[in-house]
Amino acid sequence: MFSRTMKVEIQFGDCDPAGIVYYPNYFRFFDNATAGLLSAAFGMNKRAWIAHYGIAGIPMVDTGARFLQPSRFGDLVEIRSEITELGRSSFGVRHTLLRDGEPAIEAHEKRVWVIYGEGESIRSAPLPDDVRTRLSQTA
Amino acid sequence: MFSRTMKVEIQFGDCDPAGIVYYPNYFRFFDNATAGLLSAAFGMNKRAWIAHYGIAGIPMVDTGARFLQPSRFGDLVEIRSEITELGRSSFGVRHTLLRDGEPAIEAHEKRVWVIYGEGESIRSAPLPDDVRTRLSQTA
Amino acid sequence: MFSRTMKVEIQFGDCDPAGIVYYPNYFRFFDNATAGLLSAAFGMNKRAWIAHYGIAGIPMVDTGARFLQPSRFGDLVEIRSEITELGRSSFGVRHTLLRDGEPAIEAHEKRVWVIYGEGESIRSAPLPDDVRTRLSQTA
Amino acid sequence: MFSRTMKVEIQFGDCDPAGIVYYPNYFRFFDNATAGLLSAAFGMNKRAWIAHYGIAGIPMVDTGARFLQPSRFGDLVEIRSEITELGRSSFGVRHTLLRDGEPAIEAHEKRVWVIYGEGESIRSAPLPDDVRTRLSQTA
Repeated sequence: MFSRTMKVEIQFGDCDPAGIVYYPNYFRFFDNATAGLLSAAFGMNKRAWIAHYGIAGIPMVDTGARFLQPSRFGDLVEIRSEITELGRSSFGVRHTLLRDGEPAIEAHEKRVWVIYGEGESIRSAPLPDDVRTRLSQTA
Repeated sequence: MFSRTMKVEIQFGDCDPAGIVYYPNYFRFFDNATAGLLSAAFGMNKRAWIAHYGIAGIPMVDTGARFLQPSRFGDLVEIRSEITELGRSSFGVRHTLLRDGEPAIEAHEKRVWVIYGEGESIRSAPLPDDVRTRLSQTA
Repeated sequence: MFSRTMKVEIQFGDCDPAGIVYYPNYFRFFDNATAGLLSAAFGMNKRAWIAHYGIAGIPMVDTGARFLQPSRFGDLVEIRSEITELGRSSFGVRHTLLRDGEPAIEAHEKRVWVIYGEGESIRSAPLPDDVRTRLSQTA
Repeated sequence: MFSRTMKVEIQFGDCDPAGIVYYPNYFRFFDNATAGLLSAAFGMNKRAWIAHYGIAGIPMVDTGARFLQPSRFGDLVEIRSEITELGRSSFGVRHTLLRDGEPAIEAHEKRVWVIYGEGESIRSAPLPDDVRTRLSQTA
């Protein structure tokens, strides 16, 4: 399935009084990684593909992470992201954060392809064939 | 085991362009909820109990969340947190975020009781008996 | 002019490796304080008054802060917010963050009342008389 | 004086329900920009120069920003940062955020060079000559 690696330099403000990354920030990194993964697959940035496919977004329905090693500011880490599953209107992603080439975090997520319903409501919609094809390619 | 409920009013800045809470912020809420849970169990705030027990902190080793319903700014939600497990040097917490009394998120976490080792390193340490007693009480 | 005080308990995750509040988070607190100030003046929460007045929001056009004393997690601080100026389509707010009753931060901001224009654009609009009246009252 | 430009790609999670960058996040970008500016001047990353100079950090004492144009996720912006002033134990920085080559934000900051005092306290210390020389060079 489609995969991509991005680099992140841990910043001072990403860290907490223990001097290590404040873990909610990892989910921000992973959200950016998924956006980058889809942007690479679709050949346009997230704002463009939200408009192109007419969706409200790709909200998270399930995520989890195991933290094997802490990271500190100044660390340059890599996040390897890969599509793991393509459902009817959802998809799975696995992220591995590597520090010095060693896995430091293993995370997974399941997201839904949603469109706007009535009012402020959002509802799932089937993944377009084009999306399915692009996310299932090996790259 | 020990439990506690806290209220959170969702703020404008907690939300993303889809108008719903940006999910990494939920982990910030849950981190605050765990801090509040332990503060209630120990009868002092987090800075005080970090100093009192001479620890570096309670870093996350494993967490996950299922998102059942989105929340929007202006929503007043409740987070019910409960200790689920007491290991030798780790403990588990379950958080249920309720919106209009209905579960909107179910999350779990496993944290480790850590002390400073040499240099910048941190290492796990056994939960003190006092901590074990306080976290296992029903309240 | 209209004023309001809110309490904030500084959280572990609000702080940086120096153990003090990571200063961008103060602007998040001040944004919440301004939202709370207007919500108190208008008698409804921010989502409700955005809908009620048909605006896109109240984006910041100018802000500044002087940091007199750091705060640490566990500190319970007060933010006193007050409308300082009412322009045609803008308004000013002053925030004073107090720690142990002493000013720790003095901040000011200027915001614009904006409505949606064509496409994604936003443009300023005159403050409604009702808004002007409510923000100029002493309370 | 020393200057440096960095690029930032605005992320979905940096933005608020109005679809534009939530302004406290700009201060996070500027903090990263100042860290990058000093890292370039000192030839080592922030964690390394904090250790090298034996300081607690460079806390903000005064900052301000004028927001001329909003940015949206997907925008690739540039932040030009420059040292503007070197005091005895403080220094000034100016940041200009450019979008499509046009200034979108003009910000300034004053920071203090601080070392640890007794207990948790921090206090200002004179800028080392080496630091003064490096920050005053044109580059």
